[in-house]
Amino acid sequence: MGFSLPRGFRLAGVSCGIKRNRDCPDLTLIVGDEPLVAAGVYTTNLICAAPVVVDRQRTPSDAIRVVVANSGNANACTGERGLRDALDMAGDAARACGAATEQALVLSTGIIGEYLPMEKIRNGIAQAAAQLGCDEASFVNAARGITTTDRQHKVAAREVACEGSVLRIAGMAKGAGMIGPKMATLLAVLMTDAPLAPPEAQEVLQEAVDASFNCISVEGHTSTNDTVLLLASGKACQRPLPARHRALFQQALSDTCVELARLIPDDGEGASHLITIDVSGCATPDDARRIAETIANSALVKTAIAGADPNWGRIVSAAGYAGVPFDPNRLSLFLNQRPLFRNGQPVPFDAQDVSDAIRNNRETHVDLRLEMGVSRIRFWTSDLTADYVKLNADYHT
Amino acid sequence: MGFSLPRGFRLAGVSCGIKRNRDCPDLTLIVGDEPLVAAGVYTTNLICAAPVVVDRQRTPSDAIRVVVANSGNANACTGERGLRDALDMAGDAARACGAATEQALVLSTGIIGEYLPMEKIRNGIAQAAAQLGCDEASFVNAARGITTTDRQHKVAAREVACEGSVLRIAGMAKGAGMIGPKMATLLAVLMTDAPLAPPEAQEVLQEAVDASFNCISVEGHTSTNDTVLLLASGKACQRPLPARHRALFQQALSDTCVELARLIPDDGEGASHLITIDVSGCATPDDARRIAETIANSALVKTAIAGADPNWGRIVSAAGYAGVPFDPNRLSLFLNQRPLFRNGQPVPFDAQDVSDAIRNNRETHVDLRLEMGVSRIRFWTSDLTADYVKLNADYHT
Repeated sequence: MGFSLPRGFRLAGVSCGIKRNRDCPDLTLIVGDEPLVAAGVYTTNLICAAPVVVDRQRTPSDAIRVVVANSGNANACTGERGLRDALDMAGDAARACGAATEQALVLSTGIIGEYLPMEKIRNGIAQAAAQLGCDEASFVNAARGITTTDRQHKVAAREVACEGSVLRIAGMAKGAGMIGPKMATLLAVLMTDAPLAPPEAQEVLQEAVDASFNCISVEGHTSTNDTVLLLASGKACQRPLPARHRALFQQALSDTCVELARLIPDDGEGASHLITIDVSGCATPDDARRIAETIANSALVKTAIAGADPNWGRIVSAAGYAGVPFDPNRLSLFLNQRPLFRNGQPVPFDAQDVSDAIRNNRETHVDLRLEMGVSRIRFWTSDLTADYVKLNADYHT
Repeated sequence: MGFSLPRGFRLAGVSCGIKRNRDCPDLTLIVGDEPLVAAGVYTTNLICAAPVVVDRQRTPSDAIRVVVANSGNANACTGERGLRDALDMAGDAARACGAATEQALVLSTGIIGEYLPMEKIRNGIAQAAAQLGCDEASFVNAARGITTTDRQHKVAAREVACEGSVLRIAGMAKGAGMIGPKMATLLAVLMTDAPLAPPEAQEVLQEAVDASFNCISVEGHTSTNDTVLLLASGKACQRPLPARHRALFQQALSDTCVELARLIPDDGEGASHLITIDVSGCATPDDARRIAETIANSALVKTAIAGADPNWGRIVSAAGYAGVPFDPNRLSLFLNQRPLFRNGQPVPFDAQDVSDAIRNNRETHVDLRLEMGVSRIRFWTSDLTADYVKLNADYHT
């Protein structure tokens, strides 16, 4: 790992029997030595899970002591009982850390529509509370405890020098499927020891999320549970951060989020390619986002990349149905740096060369240029393979 | 087949070598004995194919003599040369039938971004013009000539009694992939001998398309070439149709279009299920359409059906991110007539029974009720299988 955790946090991840695989933790605790500043960004899905309802009410805050998370069950579409369960789960975690009931946040991810196994969760919380640590193993176990179909846990970290001190940022994320244009079945927790006031935490988190977790897609299905939390202990130095260091901190936080976000489509269910989509020359930032999202969610684009097929008509036609006005005669497309379509005309190209360039690289670069303005976006998605279908046809039963 | 073609038409479908498989026709001619009334509904994709540009300018009309169609090449994203090719193709077809250049419409479907093989097309037109007929074999060959990845040709017909005469309707359609919310890589031609004025033809066609070809999706990718044409010879009886018969004709035309439209997701690439989605109790028709489309395009919903997995959380959560306001606590879901979710609460159900009901039937029925109003829609899509991915990963190379 090679980095130090932000000061003021202890973590644990344990297996309490929610997931079938007992080798992987399914319950995570993140505890602040003292009250933490906390901010959250949540799913835009109207059908949101019970833990999202709870956390939305409790953030931003300057008094959070603990975050409890489980994987294997999303506690979504579970009605009033689900809400009671989420509140009970938060309450149990708070008590286990000697905090007041309202000082806990709660995260869940996994199957939708089943009630939480509350006894397992209670046992898991007790077990985790007894194992809290601030070493690397504790951090990794905590990160593993929020994974579901992820092939591996996802962590990232940055440091920012600040007047003789060092601000530390460490983050964990999960997600591999149900990853939609506005966040994903994605949980992420960013921890820092930077000193932030609650509105400031909310602001830096939103900016970081917009450029990262809001720019990824696996299949465009916005989940019920998406949550990104920022927890700040303030242990690194005195508040407030000088303006210059605030900017450096923002950059480092955004970079951490981008690093975590990219890991998600890279680990997309069944994915054989991470696809980076640059859309530039747009009239507005929203135009750029809509075109990038439409390309990222096209099953035809994603299957073509899976098959190393330079079928660029699928990319260009996806841009055409994004609902964004542009001049097709100024449109150009590059695939892995090779021009395939320029100013509305096909460019003769060596299909075998382009196909090889897709097949022989884990990453594919789609570069679409509109020449309608100066707005741009970078977006990430995964390709669509037969393995994705197999994984998702067999997930439940 | 068991129906008679509308009077006033002759057709042919021949193989001219655009498709690799020489057993299947790839060039179709539909010729009117006298000038035909013609109306068209076209793709909403900003990147539209050259034949769509030509036909849009030429319809509605009361002077069309011929429709020429090819499969195996979409003549899309082909710039000015593609437009000249489309005009030449139309011109050749017109000349072959003794008509003026502007009396022809043109349709193309197949791979995007390659120029039409004009010599093959010219030969095909000459060959087809020599084989025109009004028998069943000619109709079937013409219908086969517009197919691409379709497993079989798609035709439907209706008759309407009208004051001692009979109005006949016969239609053909193609489409199995790149089927988006607003039409599809879909070509359809409806022929009738009903007497219709051009604006009337446009009106009845638009109404029929809205309830049929605009209610289907395979993967939500709106194609560059989507076209539905209505051709009316007026040979059945004198114009104008009495109001009552106009209504009966509208119903019969809409029914024909629904029958053809359903065949498309039923034949969806790799599909193992035809999914019918009823969304009812919506505040507006647009709300109903947006929710149905979002469910129809969710890879997670479609893989669940493919796997006979009663994972209803995916359906409910898709409704939640459709961008339509509703009260989750009034939402109910039935799958193959079985209640799974009622008024925002999960309903205990026999998972094996529901899974069997999906697995053992070609058709799956999703019935989502909002209780927010009285608007409803019926929408069709296919499931998403590993075979879809294989077909589309290997289509080009």
